[in-house]
Amino acid sequence: METSSIKKLEKFEVQEIIRQALREDLGGYGDITSKYTIPSQSTSCAFAVCKQKEGTVLCGIDIMQFVFEEIDKRVVFEKLKQDGDFLNDRDIICRVKGPSASILSAERTALNFLQHMSGIAAFTSKFVSIASKYNIKVTDTRKTKPGLRKLEKYAVACGGGFNHRYGLFDGVLIKDNHIVAAGGIANALKAAKAMAPHQLKIEVEVKTFAELDEAIANKADIVMLDNMSAEQMSEAVKIIREKTSGACLIEASGGVTLESVEDICKCGVDIISAGCITHSAPAADFSLEFE
Amino acid sequence: METSSIKKLEKFEVQEIIRQALREDLGGYGDITSKYTIPSQSTSCAFAVCKQKEGTVLCGIDIMQFVFEEIDKRVVFEKLKQDGDFLNDRDIICRVKGPSASILSAERTALNFLQHMSGIAAFTSKFVSIASKYNIKVTDTRKTKPGLRKLEKYAVACGGGFNHRYGLFDGVLIKDNHIVAAGGIANALKAAKAMAPHQLKIEVEVKTFAELDEAIANKADIVMLDNMSAEQMSEAVKIIREKTSGACLIEASGGVTLESVEDICKCGVDIISAGCITHSAPAADFSLEFE
Amino acid sequence: METSSIKKLEKFEVQEIIRQALREDLGGYGDITSKYTIPSQSTSCAFAVCKQKEGTVLCGIDIMQFVFEEIDKRVVFEKLKQDGDFLNDRDIICRVKGPSASILSAERTALNFLQHMSGIAAFTSKFVSIASKYNIKVTDTRKTKPGLRKLEKYAVACGGGFNHRYGLFDGVLIKDNHIVAAGGIANALKAAKAMAPHQLKIEVEVKTFAELDEAIANKADIVMLDNMSAEQMSEAVKIIREKTSGACLIEASGGVTLESVEDICKCGVDIISAGCITHSAPAADFSLEFE
Amino acid sequence: METSSIKKLEKFEVQEIIRQALREDLGGYGDITSKYTIPSQSTSCAFAVCKQKEGTVLCGIDIMQFVFEEIDKRVVFEKLKQDGDFLNDRDIICRVKGPSASILSAERTALNFLQHMSGIAAFTSKFVSIASKYNIKVTDTRKTKPGLRKLEKYAVACGGGFNHRYGLFDGVLIKDNHIVAAGGIANALKAAKAMAPHQLKIEVEVKTFAELDEAIANKADIVMLDNMSAEQMSEAVKIIREKTSGACLIEASGGVTLESVEDICKCGVDIISAGCITHSAPAADFSLEFE
Amino acid sequence: METSSIKKLEKFEVQEIIRQALREDLGGYGDITSKYTIPSQSTSCAFAVCKQKEGTVLCGIDIMQFVFEEIDKRVVFEKLKQDGDFLNDRDIICRVKGPSASILSAERTALNFLQHMSGIAAFTSKFVSIASKYNIKVTDTRKTKPGLRKLEKYAVACGGGFNHRYGLFDGVLIKDNHIVAAGGIANALKAAKAMAPHQLKIEVEVKTFAELDEAIANKADIVMLDNMSAEQMSEAVKIIREKTSGACLIEASGGVTLESVEDICKCGVDIISAGCITHSAPAADFSLEFE
Amino acid sequence: METSSIKKLEKFEVQEIIRQALREDLGGYGDITSKYTIPSQSTSCAFAVCKQKEGTVLCGIDIMQFVFEEIDKRVVFEKLKQDGDFLNDRDIICRVKGPSASILSAERTALNFLQHMSGIAAFTSKFVSIASKYNIKVTDTRKTKPGLRKLEKYAVACGGGFNHRYGLFDGVLIKDNHIVAAGGIANALKAAKAMAPHQLKIEVEVKTFAELDEAIANKADIVMLDNMSAEQMSEAVKIIREKTSGACLIEASGGVTLESVEDICKCGVDIISAGCITHSAPAADFSLEFE
Repeated sequence: METSSIKKLEKFEVQEIIRQALREDLGGYGDITSKYTIPSQSTSCAFAVCKQKEGTVLCGIDIMQFVFEEIDKRVVFEKLKQDGDFLNDRDIICRVKGPSASILSAERTALNFLQHMSGIAAFTSKFVSIASKYNIKVTDTRKTKPGLRKLEKYAVACGGGFNHRYGLFDGVLIKDNHIVAAGGIANALKAAKAMAPHQLKIEVEVKTFAELDEAIANKADIVMLDNMSAEQMSEAVKIIREKTSGACLIEASGGVTLESVEDICKCGVDIISAGCITHSAPAADFSLEFE
Repeated sequence: METSSIKKLEKFEVQEIIRQALREDLGGYGDITSKYTIPSQSTSCAFAVCKQKEGTVLCGIDIMQFVFEEIDKRVVFEKLKQDGDFLNDRDIICRVKGPSASILSAERTALNFLQHMSGIAAFTSKFVSIASKYNIKVTDTRKTKPGLRKLEKYAVACGGGFNHRYGLFDGVLIKDNHIVAAGGIANALKAAKAMAPHQLKIEVEVKTFAELDEAIANKADIVMLDNMSAEQMSEAVKIIREKTSGACLIEASGGVTLESVEDICKCGVDIISAGCITHSAPAADFSLEFE
Repeated sequence: METSSIKKLEKFEVQEIIRQALREDLGGYGDITSKYTIPSQSTSCAFAVCKQKEGTVLCGIDIMQFVFEEIDKRVVFEKLKQDGDFLNDRDIICRVKGPSASILSAERTALNFLQHMSGIAAFTSKFVSIASKYNIKVTDTRKTKPGLRKLEKYAVACGGGFNHRYGLFDGVLIKDNHIVAAGGIANALKAAKAMAPHQLKIEVEVKTFAELDEAIANKADIVMLDNMSAEQMSEAVKIIREKTSGACLIEASGGVTLESVEDICKCGVDIISAGCITHSAPAADFSLEFE
Repeated sequence: METSSIKKLEKFEVQEIIRQALREDLGGYGDITSKYTIPSQSTSCAFAVCKQKEGTVLCGIDIMQFVFEEIDKRVVFEKLKQDGDFLNDRDIICRVKGPSASILSAERTALNFLQHMSGIAAFTSKFVSIASKYNIKVTDTRKTKPGLRKLEKYAVACGGGFNHRYGLFDGVLIKDNHIVAAGGIANALKAAKAMAPHQLKIEVEVKTFAELDEAIANKADIVMLDNMSAEQMSEAVKIIREKTSGACLIEASGGVTLESVEDICKCGVDIISAGCITHSAPAADFSLEFE
Repeated sequence: METSSIKKLEKFEVQEIIRQALREDLGGYGDITSKYTIPSQSTSCAFAVCKQKEGTVLCGIDIMQFVFEEIDKRVVFEKLKQDGDFLNDRDIICRVKGPSASILSAERTALNFLQHMSGIAAFTSKFVSIASKYNIKVTDTRKTKPGLRKLEKYAVACGGGFNHRYGLFDGVLIKDNHIVAAGGIANALKAAKAMAPHQLKIEVEVKTFAELDEAIANKADIVMLDNMSAEQMSEAVKIIREKTSGACLIEASGGVTLESVEDICKCGVDIISAGCITHSAPAADFSLEFE
Repeated sequence: METSSIKKLEKFEVQEIIRQALREDLGGYGDITSKYTIPSQSTSCAFAVCKQKEGTVLCGIDIMQFVFEEIDKRVVFEKLKQDGDFLNDRDIICRVKGPSASILSAERTALNFLQHMSGIAAFTSKFVSIASKYNIKVTDTRKTKPGLRKLEKYAVACGGGFNHRYGLFDGVLIKDNHIVAAGGIANALKAAKAMAPHQLKIEVEVKTFAELDEAIANKADIVMLDNMSAEQMSEAVKIIREKTSGACLIEASGGVTLESVEDICKCGVDIISAGCITHSAPAADFSLEFE
């Protein structure tokens, strides 16, 4: 099966997030410990190293470089690994060389990006290694940390996952609450099909077989099976495949965990979307060590 | 012992973060699913509910309100719980009433704040429930998600933890890399004591007893014991208490986990700082349900 | 056939554009003519009136209100017409009442939004009145004025048109230059189908029948016929309908004008996209008159 | 007579507008078509070409360069024409060379600036070619697109026109509504002359001969004849020249079109200001073609 | 003679400056002293009082109100004096009532605006009280604190002074360095007169009588006599009045002090511009006292 | 005694302030005098020179360079002096070489930073030259110009002074109004000691000996003696030294002037904080001269 190809984040896409993170850490007087303790002419070499016993997936190496550049253009950054690489404990991912105070001022902000993004990439890759055996795509959701969606969705791709819609603006996904407010699936689907930009498929969330029938009857392009049991899901997949001759995509969603993902795969869906890969991935451990 | 008192975040402190989160979710055409499927005159009532089996600590209820207000001033928000409250599964925390499309446009962004902040508060409270038996403060670190430090540190306080320095600008903490670049602890401490704003105590990280002696000899106000074993830590505490007559605060740090925290408490330190309470807290589960 | 339903722009979506427009007009000393000539206690009533002999379609009335509110909350704005209404010459669209200097400071910025957006709505409606006879949708393109895309696409909807993708991020449209860089239609289509978020249809631009065959063979979801003659287009439509059993949408594009649109309609396409409705619509004439 | 000299816009003056235009086009996932279809190592050459049968006036070539630089510093931009140059159909104005995906991501935003600004320059030059025979200056107004005034006024200069005041802050122009609110021309003129920064001339709009007399009697530095017939205007010019010995400048304004401009010129005014050169200029046609 | 009329700064004109000032004071954890020491339900009354022995001129009272509103809308602000009022020592200018912590968080930022702006207004008024006896206007220059020009120029008006051009964009002032770069006064004046927006007068700085002759010969609208002695200035005024029949305005500039201003007045110029009223005015003393 | 070491402001820390200052000066049409009078190919050399009879302390030379770079990267800036250097009248501090119009557009903004910051550095150095004889530190306060605190506190350090807390967020200073709202010194101190981040010392302002006793009894880390007479201050110092064995720092504050500072020094305090060094320092005189 196809695997997601990792696409580099360009500097102009992330610069504002980086600046805000630095402002957050350096507000007021800036890095006073370095200012007060380190001679201004002092230069250092340092390297960043993986400290995760079981290894991790690298994500954020370019952003790390942007952070150092933003603080001081004189810092030389040598990249030894690429985003998406699997790392073993004690693998060195980059070296930096330059004014000591600048390296220290950038250190924590750079590592904060790295540990967060690599944590997501590594957690995602665990889901992918299971689902890919069944030729099923794992995608993210919109359950991301406020302001960090671009980075978190990029990390999902680095871990081998695929991206679902980015926000409310680039996909039509009719969920339970919309169905209530719209007065039923038929109403909602008809309105969306008539008015949405024509390049968008229309997706509907269903919880029951009655809803499923209504979704199929009104030509949903994608059906999301929400919080169904494995048995129900298998049955739903069978119905959809028969009635739509394969024209309708099937997505499973709702409380997917590392423990439950294989059972869902066995139901034969096309896509599994998992909120936990972005909202609950533990950080990966890295540190910057001076030589 | 004193417990941290939870201080409300004012709207002007968080408004920019909220706006960015909404922009992220609503860029381009905005919430097209709601726009296309829901009649503009439709109004709804909904409530947010805890879905965490083992319960959680609430954090982010005011921010949730700000999110709804930012989207549409006509949405009425009724707050049923306060930040810092312990929640059981299925506890209702607020009700919202207003234009259906506005509620749906705000839903995910509001829940993203809530699940992330409550997750941190709940995870912190587990450390606090242990350490408070020993009269020891649990504090956060600077290992936070880029751009979200204010919210994450607030969540730590909601979970009963205390805040360490906010950034590089409001505390002097001389770490291993500073010591290398400054040419030793004595140099670094002397320079910092001479030049730092006089309201700041000077903290030094030590890894060995030789470093500890140098830190004490040069009148560090706070000593951070980094990655020491329980035995070493107990010994270090004894030395510091004797030599400084209690004038010097003792902080334990480095890879603190829920498993290791009680052993550290037994060493008699004053403060335990734990990066994991902000960088690896799993999200708490909440959902918004229409009535 | 369905017609596009006009969806209101919320204040928070346009506030930044409004503030920038006001800053542009009021930089430095602000509105010095009003400051120097009008007593600060002076209040006035005024109304905005259509001055377009042949009539126009109203677009921008809410934004006009936001402009006055932004300048001075004391200005009372009475809305007499809705966005999307057809206007005759001398129709009054709103009344404002409040401090004279505030009304005058807001006047030109408010009218600049109004004349530009109504101009686009009116120009669009001319295309729509032709195409709707053939049950064909008229859509916009990305040929908009920098920074004003949201407003211009909203104006297209007010004129009865439909919206194509908003930007490069919410639709996959493989154009001639992509085909060159990707090494052919097959390559490009396969890659896009494998990697794009699953809710997006994949559209391909074709200029020849050979390209059309390749697009169909590789299961393009939408085909854009670019700059074809009416004969070629009719032939292409026939081929697509036969080979795809109606599964593939057909869009006509390239130099569409008010003169050529009916001939294109007769070819039987589903959608006609026209850059000129946003990039070359003449302004509509309005003025604000004091009573 | 003197002609307006075209002054280059510096990068720092337009960078924010460019960034916003790019954000508008690239929000969310960025340029997904290029990301998914084009190999990251692919490089291309392309050229931008005029596709306007009757030719146009170039405006925006430097901004085009800034757009490509903003996206990717590796793109090499070769400028073949200057702003203000007259272009024939199929004239090539620049070549770009660099990563294919970067060129494609920048293409539409760059062309949107170019087509809009060149359209204004070309339309302005038609007015100038008539008025310059009479030694009369053509100026713009404040009837510009919100947020784009700087670029549109620059385009007017590229078309040979002159700039009127930029905003409400750098000129005193007492219009009909001010006169009402101030209680007459005499009041308004006296107040403005007493209080305005001394480097500003005071301009008054008059619609009748009674108003003209009052304006002259109160020593207006500039009189704007608003919406007068050619006969009235000729008479007004005669009166002003006689009574003020040439000290008072005369500006004609109000509904000036390409059809009416020569008749106004014959009345002997000094300046003709025309809103349509910015608010209703049709876009010029350019395209970017890959080699 | 006319005196400058004080025009209120609207909230939207100063909001960004206020927010930045508050961010500067409240970055990171916010007002920790108030957060930690004051019960959240505590409310207080306080008043702001002049503590300037010799009195001062009030400037900034509205901005003070905006600062309190920005921090907390529940704070009630009662304004007892107006901008431009002369204050005696111990005069109370306003009362505030509301949450104690909010009042304390806003206090210093509010007072910083007040002390700075009132200081400028009071210092300006000393120059005005001398010059107004001679019917001569005192104006400011562009020698203002970066980012605060709008407030400082407003303060000058509150002190009875007049405003010169705001920036480089709303006045043409040909200074010594321009003359060098342009190749002489004649060149510079001709170019400026041909190209500048027609509502702007052209001003030239002259240091010698030769330069003065060239300025007059080329019809400068305003002549600035720079750093001349009183004798030279008197002579220059005589020459200008004779040769231009009063059509040319005369401005004196260059190192004007409170000591030298009366001698300059006696030379008969129209305008005296003084950099020191903005760049070197000492702050006025105010304090906020709790009742 | 130690003297403050001057720490360079990095470009990213001040860039936003510089851009705002330039926007303020160049809004609208930009530098029209240079645009209209100076040929675009003209280049010039210029130097900046001190024009302060009694000399000054240089502060702002790097910022000056950033201003020129921001306007035009082609301008070559040669730095001849460093921040913190004492300057004599007519000392040349830098040379610039490049496009004449760019140099002129940057001139005033660059000089405004320079004159303001050097004025503060020079004024501070007068206090320092007195206090350093007594081994007493002179510090600034939060009485700074809104938006310019970072620059003003940097200037204080360049003049040999020390920095007090930056804002409300990096120091706990319990002042008279807090004491009122908290219900006394004991309450306030206990709460602050329990809750403040542990790296912050707690400072209390006292006006009477009763307050002093309460502050000492509750273990204030720093006592600020506010507006006491020299006799009272000497007495207070004696009490504090005796009762706290030197553990408590002593700061004198309140209306400190160049006239009163030596008397305060004689009282034996550790620190003198003076608002006037930032709020009332007169500007230093510099000019840019073309060669």
